[in-house]
Amino acid sequence: MATRDDHGSTEDRLIARFFKPLATHPGALGLSDDAAFIKPPAGCDLVLKADAIIGGVHFFPEDPADRVAQKAMRVNLSDLAAKGARPLGFLVSLALQRDVGETWLAAFCDGLKADIGAFSCPLFGGDTDRTPGPITVSVAMFGAVPEGTMVRRAGAKSGDKIMVTGTIGDAALGLKARRAELPKLSAAQRDHLLARYLLPQPRNAAAEALRMYASAAMDISDGLAGDLAKLCRVSGVAGEINAVKVPLSDAAKGALAAAPALIETILTGGDDYEIVCTVARDKAEAFKAASDKAGVSLTEIGTVGAGEGLVIRDTQGQKLEFAHGSFSHF
Amino acid sequence: MATRDDHGSTEDRLIARFFKPLATHPGALGLSDDAAFIKPPAGCDLVLKADAIIGGVHFFPEDPADRVAQKAMRVNLSDLAAKGARPLGFLVSLALQRDVGETWLAAFCDGLKADIGAFSCPLFGGDTDRTPGPITVSVAMFGAVPEGTMVRRAGAKSGDKIMVTGTIGDAALGLKARRAELPKLSAAQRDHLLARYLLPQPRNAAAEALRMYASAAMDISDGLAGDLAKLCRVSGVAGEINAVKVPLSDAAKGALAAAPALIETILTGGDDYEIVCTVARDKAEAFKAASDKAGVSLTEIGTVGAGEGLVIRDTQGQKLEFAHGSFSHF
Repeated sequence: MATRDDHGSTEDRLIARFFKPLATHPGALGLSDDAAFIKPPAGCDLVLKADAIIGGVHFFPEDPADRVAQKAMRVNLSDLAAKGARPLGFLVSLALQRDVGETWLAAFCDGLKADIGAFSCPLFGGDTDRTPGPITVSVAMFGAVPEGTMVRRAGAKSGDKIMVTGTIGDAALGLKARRAELPKLSAAQRDHLLARYLLPQPRNAAAEALRMYASAAMDISDGLAGDLAKLCRVSGVAGEINAVKVPLSDAAKGALAAAPALIETILTGGDDYEIVCTVARDKAEAFKAASDKAGVSLTEIGTVGAGEGLVIRDTQGQKLEFAHGSFSHF
Repeated sequence: MATRDDHGSTEDRLIARFFKPLATHPGALGLSDDAAFIKPPAGCDLVLKADAIIGGVHFFPEDPADRVAQKAMRVNLSDLAAKGARPLGFLVSLALQRDVGETWLAAFCDGLKADIGAFSCPLFGGDTDRTPGPITVSVAMFGAVPEGTMVRRAGAKSGDKIMVTGTIGDAALGLKARRAELPKLSAAQRDHLLARYLLPQPRNAAAEALRMYASAAMDISDGLAGDLAKLCRVSGVAGEINAVKVPLSDAAKGALAAAPALIETILTGGDDYEIVCTVARDKAEAFKAASDKAGVSLTEIGTVGAGEGLVIRDTQGQKLEFAHGSFSHF
């Protein structure tokens, strides 16, 4: 068990060298204080989220360190996007193995720096510790929405349309590609899927459109089927989607054509970091236009009805049932 | 590598059973959404802090789970106290081994519940993950201070008095007692030191007094000597304290009488979670009265001067020098 002072001095050096240059917000105080501070934007609610990623669980230990840093930020950014929130900043608790070298740390901080800039999400603080276990990156992120406007999961109403951003299933297929469990694809298709697993593309650009129009939304981290089922459950409604309408990338279409059973991976595999949401029928067109304008595609995949549960139909209108996955728990 | 949907359903069950009952703040939405929200108090700055504790590094794997939970909260609460901030709430990312049982989790949540109540610090959310490594508890906590009044480390001025809350060195001696490295003590003395290591007693009761009177403050996690040296460095001043004035518990006095070399452990060992602070001479009396009224003892241990560095003198006025510890890095 390391003594705190030994650990403390190591931590101080790490922070000064690698993290302090990233903490340019005045409230971060150059990471030289016990805590940071921020003046909350007037008339806003704060949106709060914490999610961690762990080596060997959420990423491969050999993944590039900059991508690990970006993934840790982006799984949280994705939640803010789904809630219609603008990022305000984040804290990071980093547990590192003793033999993690400066090359890894420098690359990790490059990744943080890239996304601090790309998402206007400043670093406010955190801590680093040594761990005998895998690298663990715990991010706590906070954002802002005009008071009372955070988009909830529990807002879907009978008659709403169900929509998703981007394309579904790429990351889960990318994980399979990483494990050499996919049928033969072109190099370009394989690279697309691998990249989608390695680096989520959170839809923060669509946050304002979601806040303006969506009746309910959540980010898809555990698979479209399971996550949409959760949204329907907390909203007290039933959902029905058509698998054929679910937007797929060319790469996912290629994989599915070669192995039709992959539809289960696509719909239940997770790590999409797209957004599934509902919208009143009479707002759907304006919603799609606003999202398009923000550069995020929105596709209608089904409808909300009275009752409970989620039904997924195939091309022939038959109900799809999956052997496992998030489907098992509702 | 676990698939996200398998992990997701396990996480959902854990959250619903153990954590949801703790999340009674309306903004936590019963932990049934992607994120939580809070309306920030009017006219306040938010104070932001994240600190993690890891089994085998910051606590013993066999420590009672409720104490682990409380320690994770309290190391963060202590920072809020030092900054003069009132707790608003926290997020927790919990990485658990697969064989952690429900008994452990239930006790962990009992610990959270106790301190949610004791410190009026509601749970807003977080996540649980499985890890092949040690239990890791990452807390992100946020508090509030009237705008512009967060107590900084960088505010000490030449002529100020240096003061500390409570007693110093107990936790570091408690860690030594735990490892059977202490001279023989009475059972009551040993129990006192062990308890001070196991469960920090953060000085949140003194937060308002600190905000009203202190020119600078920080919580002592890495040893009084090293932490006060940091405070002096960022304030651009010199500090001088007298070891004889440093307040000790009866147990620490007993240990020190039996083994005078333990003065190094006491002053550099860390895990105190007391507060070291500075105050203008003409405010010292009012500060002490306000802190006393809040139930937190404050002891003057030295003075701030021009220059740099920290000098610690012993009974004879000789400079104390330590072989290692936080002293090594300034």
